[in-house]
Amino acid sequence: MSHFVNRRDTVVAEAIEGFLSTSRPGALARLDGFPDVKVVVRADWDRSRVAIVSGGGSGHEPAHAGFVGRGALTAAVCGDIFASPTVHAVYSAIVAVTGAAGCVLIVKNYAGDRLNFGLAAERARADGLRVEMVIVADDIALDNHARPRGIAGTLFVHKVAGHHAEAGAPLAVVAAEAARVAKAVKSIGIATTVCTIPGQAAHTRLDAGQAELGLGIHGEPGIERIALPLAGQIAAMMAERLERALPQGPVALLINNLGGTPDLEMGVVCHSLLATRLGARASHVVGPTRMMTALDMKGISISALPLDDSLVHALQADCAVAAWPGANAIQPPKLIAMPRLESRVAEPASSEPRTRAALLAVCEALIEHEAELNALDARVGDGDTGTTFAVAARTVMSAIDSLPLAQHDRMCASIGRRLSEIMGGTSGVLLSIFAAAAGRALGGGASWPAALREGLNQMRFYGGAAPGDRTMLDALTPAVEALESGAGLEKAARAARAGADATAQMVSARAGRSSYLAASALKGVADPGAVAIATAFEAIARAGGK
Amino acid sequence: MSHFVNRRDTVVAEAIEGFLSTSRPGALARLDGFPDVKVVVRADWDRSRVAIVSGGGSGHEPAHAGFVGRGALTAAVCGDIFASPTVHAVYSAIVAVTGAAGCVLIVKNYAGDRLNFGLAAERARADGLRVEMVIVADDIALDNHARPRGIAGTLFVHKVAGHHAEAGAPLAVVAAEAARVAKAVKSIGIATTVCTIPGQAAHTRLDAGQAELGLGIHGEPGIERIALPLAGQIAAMMAERLERALPQGPVALLINNLGGTPDLEMGVVCHSLLATRLGARASHVVGPTRMMTALDMKGISISALPLDDSLVHALQADCAVAAWPGANAIQPPKLIAMPRLESRVAEPASSEPRTRAALLAVCEALIEHEAELNALDARVGDGDTGTTFAVAARTVMSAIDSLPLAQHDRMCASIGRRLSEIMGGTSGVLLSIFAAAAGRALGGGASWPAALREGLNQMRFYGGAAPGDRTMLDALTPAVEALESGAGLEKAARAARAGADATAQMVSARAGRSSYLAASALKGVADPGAVAIATAFEAIARAGGK
Repeated sequence: MSHFVNRRDTVVAEAIEGFLSTSRPGALARLDGFPDVKVVVRADWDRSRVAIVSGGGSGHEPAHAGFVGRGALTAAVCGDIFASPTVHAVYSAIVAVTGAAGCVLIVKNYAGDRLNFGLAAERARADGLRVEMVIVADDIALDNHARPRGIAGTLFVHKVAGHHAEAGAPLAVVAAEAARVAKAVKSIGIATTVCTIPGQAAHTRLDAGQAELGLGIHGEPGIERIALPLAGQIAAMMAERLERALPQGPVALLINNLGGTPDLEMGVVCHSLLATRLGARASHVVGPTRMMTALDMKGISISALPLDDSLVHALQADCAVAAWPGANAIQPPKLIAMPRLESRVAEPASSEPRTRAALLAVCEALIEHEAELNALDARVGDGDTGTTFAVAARTVMSAIDSLPLAQHDRMCASIGRRLSEIMGGTSGVLLSIFAAAAGRALGGGASWPAALREGLNQMRFYGGAAPGDRTMLDALTPAVEALESGAGLEKAARAARAGADATAQMVSARAGRSSYLAASALKGVADPGAVAIATAFEAIARAGGK
Repeated sequence: MSHFVNRRDTVVAEAIEGFLSTSRPGALARLDGFPDVKVVVRADWDRSRVAIVSGGGSGHEPAHAGFVGRGALTAAVCGDIFASPTVHAVYSAIVAVTGAAGCVLIVKNYAGDRLNFGLAAERARADGLRVEMVIVADDIALDNHARPRGIAGTLFVHKVAGHHAEAGAPLAVVAAEAARVAKAVKSIGIATTVCTIPGQAAHTRLDAGQAELGLGIHGEPGIERIALPLAGQIAAMMAERLERALPQGPVALLINNLGGTPDLEMGVVCHSLLATRLGARASHVVGPTRMMTALDMKGISISALPLDDSLVHALQADCAVAAWPGANAIQPPKLIAMPRLESRVAEPASSEPRTRAALLAVCEALIEHEAELNALDARVGDGDTGTTFAVAARTVMSAIDSLPLAQHDRMCASIGRRLSEIMGGTSGVLLSIFAAAAGRALGGGASWPAALREGLNQMRFYGGAAPGDRTMLDALTPAVEALESGAGLEKAARAARAGADATAQMVSARAGRSSYLAASALKGVADPGAVAIATAFEAIARAGGK
């Protein structure tokens, strides 16, 4: 694992500067003791209400600086990667933001954070400031552990404390609400990789297919190493452990990505989690997203908070913090009926002998040349061009008397639909686009040459190829040009054949089947798609249809 | 790499269900053709304005479903992982959301997407719907490449088209604005890992310290393999290539995380990027965040869009899409002055002979026992307890005549500050907390025993240890209890010594220096911190001070 950094010792300071420069203008500031003192502060703070200060080691982004803003944290004190900030930094933050209303410190239960925030709090109190400290210890990985760690459940504490502070509640109320949430929230995590730290050699203790349950957010080993179960089993296992630690009643779930888990997998875990008994008890959800990460650790933590109306209100209250994803009421997905597409497809059959004969002639010719086209394609593609066209031809032949042969616009549309249903790969879609566009033009009153031109244009637009790229276009384009000039079908067929032949000298395929082949492989071999087009035009010319 | 999934073939459908269940209630819906047709739609859509439809393979989350909402996409058509959605799915989406105002399809420049969206568009047109398609090909990795890929610059197109559609602009205007942005935006990416796909064996082509410039968002190899440069060099390299492809004038930068890059590193790259010449031209920034990802690929892409007032307005317009991070005007970070802390530290010296004698006695005793305490600690810790206390003692001795010895509250506060500055590790912080809290209590009028109790309480709260845990508390607690009962200093010293001696029989250290040692290593060895406390109390008792 390689890291996008400059110097190990400036990573955190540079990241904070990058974060501040790209944040909403006017929302955030930093204390001017930077970079020794790394404190991110609300720019609009006037000390009129209770300040909420949190922080800890860096490497957990967006926590903690990402949660600074109206209705959430007043300030975040950032240590080095996974290292507690200094007492001096915490003390500076407290003094900078604390007015007569006081301050609540929200600290995750790690010895370094407790002590450094604690000593800073004591100093601030000695200065006459009113400071309360709430310790979050939400990790239930170890049953009855004396000193549970603080992990992502801390975000619930930030939000609830931030809400009450913003609403102007006094220090005692804000601190009590923060303490109530800190006591009630329970969390558990699982991971399949260990995080990597800039400037340190990566180490892994997990093999492919292994996971750790009860992980720490600093790369600490998990409590149990297990074979990675399916997402449904993971969800069931985590939900069961959380339920053991929770009282009855509705809960809010906070689904946290530890950093390296793709959103796709987060969605799968959410889906599985909501299907558990705990999921059925959940009335609200926060996430899934990255909130309290461990650098690039691939893992997930789930936090559950028993709810009452006051907490629902606090969690849902507006706040000006991009990293807080909101607490959404969980509801069954809303459905929108599929449009009734079938009615659009059915076309009444009609007959016209000349058109029927021309179509059959094309189909028969393509079937006749199946082996020849396959052989050509075997030299420059995957060897199935002949079969692809032959399958299409057989389908059209077998359906010929159900087509609206007398209404050419609808016939083209109908053939276009059938081709896209039975022809695999690019050719099928391109021919289907060609037929659909031509049919649409005919329906709008265009002549056959003009309609074919429209089909050709759309084929070029969607396919992205141009004449000279060794594709069907190299036969189709001269044929259409011949028809446009009034030259008639036989000349058009000759133009198509000449175009197809010329592809044998095109050695730089910029699109299509042969674009990955070297010039030497292409030289002298005509493009099978172009040859198929020439074959079809020749058959129509012979049949005298149009 | 292991994946949090259930079945490979249901990953995308489950993820979409998880995404919808956890989204803002009432905002999103899915077409009822699920899971064959995976289309996420605005739930509030009434077809009165131009519909904006995008999509493509999954694995790029939050794109594309995450960008559905008011002011952005009307619908997202989701294929399987890195696979284009079917024509049927795209066609269903178009028909479901397109009214008389028409529809704009925004498609990234991949053959499969062009063809499948193209054929669906042709069918919808044949049905009489007004459909325009805009192809995004923003990747400049290959100079003069005939078919540049569409990557994260597509988000600019979504936002601008979504804004104009929401504002009620007619189809021609919405399509022209989308096409204008698609043509103008330029992007380039870099990555250090290849993404891993659920259900497929992980493969890596990059060694540690290698990077690929000009990557694809589906794990395609980059254009150049290079030794990973510093973040500043990466930023310079990418900025230089973008500038070559851009006209003069202000730009908006979109800084996209390809999935697995920690936010900390994204911040560093942003900081470096804004320091380049391109960064100086940038007036607005979108991100850094995950917008167009490639599962867990560790990489970054940068997109630049030349700006005019109309585009700034469109990019900054409100939209109800959580995945869009906003377009922030770039500004220098705001600073808040550091509080003037120095003035709080200085205390005028004062003299009191009895206090001076007691303090000196404690210091001398701790210096005298340095070797003994180190030897004890060598058996149960890291062997430096004696030196830690001796260094502190020497500092206090040398400063003794500058201390406010006659004001015990301020003396305690002052000693607390000095201890935290010169004593390393946990003991220093804990004793500093003890002194600060005791001083604060004295200042509030407490007696010495009550003040020591307050110090003890705070030490327990912040340190998290309890009596019986083999720490300083085991000597300090009985000593304070003795003083509280009015027993006097000599009895307190005897209680401290008895407590310290008792730690030799405590074989389960739940906190502190010895919590990682086995019982057999602890048995018979007293805790050196507790012994130091007993030594200090004995010295005070002998000196007869208080």
